[in-house]
Amino acid sequence: MNYLTIRRADLLKSQKVDAVEAYGIGDPTNLEYLSGVDAPGFLVVAPKHVAFVCDDEFAAEVAAAIPDCEVVLRNANQSYAAAAGEVLRKLGAKSVGVDADATSVAEFDALMASGAAVKAIPNRVSGLRVVKDAGEVAIIREAVQIAERAFAMLRVLLREDDTEKESADALDSYIRRAGARASAFPPVVAIGERMALPNAKPGKRRVGDGSKLLVDWGADVGYKCALTRSMRSPFPVTPTRKTKSERAGQDFDDVSKAVVAAHRAALAAMRAEVPVAEVREAAQQVIAAAGYADSFLPRMGHGIGLQAIEAPILSAGSTDLLRHGMVLVLSTGVAVQGWGAVRVADTVLVTKEGCTSLTGIALDPNQLGG
Amino acid sequence: MNYLTIRRADLLKSQKVDAVEAYGIGDPTNLEYLSGVDAPGFLVVAPKHVAFVCDDEFAAEVAAAIPDCEVVLRNANQSYAAAAGEVLRKLGAKSVGVDADATSVAEFDALMASGAAVKAIPNRVSGLRVVKDAGEVAIIREAVQIAERAFAMLRVLLREDDTEKESADALDSYIRRAGARASAFPPVVAIGERMALPNAKPGKRRVGDGSKLLVDWGADVGYKCALTRSMRSPFPVTPTRKTKSERAGQDFDDVSKAVVAAHRAALAAMRAEVPVAEVREAAQQVIAAAGYADSFLPRMGHGIGLQAIEAPILSAGSTDLLRHGMVLVLSTGVAVQGWGAVRVADTVLVTKEGCTSLTGIALDPNQLGG
Repeated sequence: MNYLTIRRADLLKSQKVDAVEAYGIGDPTNLEYLSGVDAPGFLVVAPKHVAFVCDDEFAAEVAAAIPDCEVVLRNANQSYAAAAGEVLRKLGAKSVGVDADATSVAEFDALMASGAAVKAIPNRVSGLRVVKDAGEVAIIREAVQIAERAFAMLRVLLREDDTEKESADALDSYIRRAGARASAFPPVVAIGERMALPNAKPGKRRVGDGSKLLVDWGADVGYKCALTRSMRSPFPVTPTRKTKSERAGQDFDDVSKAVVAAHRAALAAMRAEVPVAEVREAAQQVIAAAGYADSFLPRMGHGIGLQAIEAPILSAGSTDLLRHGMVLVLSTGVAVQGWGAVRVADTVLVTKEGCTSLTGIALDPNQLGG
Repeated sequence: MNYLTIRRADLLKSQKVDAVEAYGIGDPTNLEYLSGVDAPGFLVVAPKHVAFVCDDEFAAEVAAAIPDCEVVLRNANQSYAAAAGEVLRKLGAKSVGVDADATSVAEFDALMASGAAVKAIPNRVSGLRVVKDAGEVAIIREAVQIAERAFAMLRVLLREDDTEKESADALDSYIRRAGARASAFPPVVAIGERMALPNAKPGKRRVGDGSKLLVDWGADVGYKCALTRSMRSPFPVTPTRKTKSERAGQDFDDVSKAVVAAHRAALAAMRAEVPVAEVREAAQQVIAAAGYADSFLPRMGHGIGLQAIEAPILSAGSTDLLRHGMVLVLSTGVAVQGWGAVRVADTVLVTKEGCTSLTGIALDPNQLGG
């Protein structure tokens, strides 16, 4: 059995609990996860039958990807879900389960029209995606390696006169050049106090116009990764270029030391069955001991895979437990408005024994080189 | 009133028909369309009240974008829709309308929990987005100009030894360099017979390894545009590099002439209140007269705006009428498996009098220059 067959079998293991005879999947990411095909359509998974509703131009690809798949072409002006409803009727399925978060009301109603009872289940397929199999981990490792090579190019080619936008665009091109389809998300380069903005979009500030910078980037090779590093500017910084708080003595090295230590403490705390809250606590203690408790960033990351942001969300209120096989973006940071921020993030794999960082580049900005 | 205020007022004009006291919007694109804010959340629009549920880091941006907006922060582990339900309860709204296609079952249920009757309406907000206002058209024009400058760069810098992937990545960087945030969608460069693939992903084929190529690209400046051009290779083509059908005499210039004439016929047929089928018919007649009826591509494009593909879809079975203010990607093509294809696409504005192509570059490949 290949990974895709295993995933569909894993989904069907919930049949009894959900009391449904089949599952219907229209969400593009869940569809790709269960079929290996990145095409618009609707998938029906039943114990002895797999059907994929799609348009003509994808039929060959679908047939090649799923052995013994019934490839169904929808009629003109028919929705994929409506055609899937017909498949269910022919199958004689009296009930079908769908993901509550990833199924539209229109899809739900179209399936209902088949006569089957439609049951919305929270995160049924998205829930499976939370734990990555060995094949997925291998692809994410490849994404990280590409992202790291692109970052090495950025460090070598960073120019004092380039704007944030120019630097971020250059990084994007390096990510592609290093072998990715594209960036996992629009890369961020933020200079000086702009590092503290919660959603910095690369702007016109120039690299030389700040004493430090933050880079937030990732590669997409089918699966995605995300990394963040903060560093001192490699260019001479005149006193006039320093922010007010910098002149007042807030030191990048001090903050950075605390953030890196906190990040390491969080990594050390990660292990299957450990609550997310415990990981946060480990980081927070180090940050608080260094005197930055008020500036600690509350969100510590999220899952990553086919999408850049997936469950679980490592938020302050999370009651989730870590699980063996989760791939997470662990993000640790301190942000001070008007001064800037230090944030680091790694793509990591949770295991029974602990956690394996898939990231190879140094956390300590003084060891980044370049 | 600014455009955003007008859009919310336009939405509320459907209140009587829909028999609802308010609308709830969670779909990210519809949310941005009605609020001007690109942030995750949930919007409630009622005659005398606008509320936006979001997270802390977006609160200031939301408050700045929407005058007199109630900015609501959701609780930890609460969904945006659940918090929106509380807003509805406080408002005393007994009914709320949502878009059937753009609302998940989970959001629907969360709103239901407020006690309000939730009504799923097909394309209520998406339907408004089909007709663009003058502000939107101006931004799309800007996107087209950027896309055209990027294409000029590609033509100048195209290299015989570059692969499809390298050329597409280069084009992506030119699109950013010319001023866009990003590409509107992953650019496609397809060489030789690969031009006929329905979903060509740029691969390892080199520009010099074919006698012709197709470029499909667009810019994103908040709003998007899309363009396609097909052309002869600017590099010498040895006989061994020709495809079998090329050697058999299928000529690029002949096909190109027919496609360009058909595209012009379709453009000439476009006008508010004209059925989509009539536009297709105009193109099809020209293609058939030239002897390529069997190779005519059935889909002639789609709407474009905040998303690269929006309603209406110009499919073979469409029963839609064109409307004044629609911005469409009109795409005309002939594809022959094993030989290649000629496809052209323009971003155009439908008006009462006819249609204005927003695209300035030549359709005729012999007039492209470069």
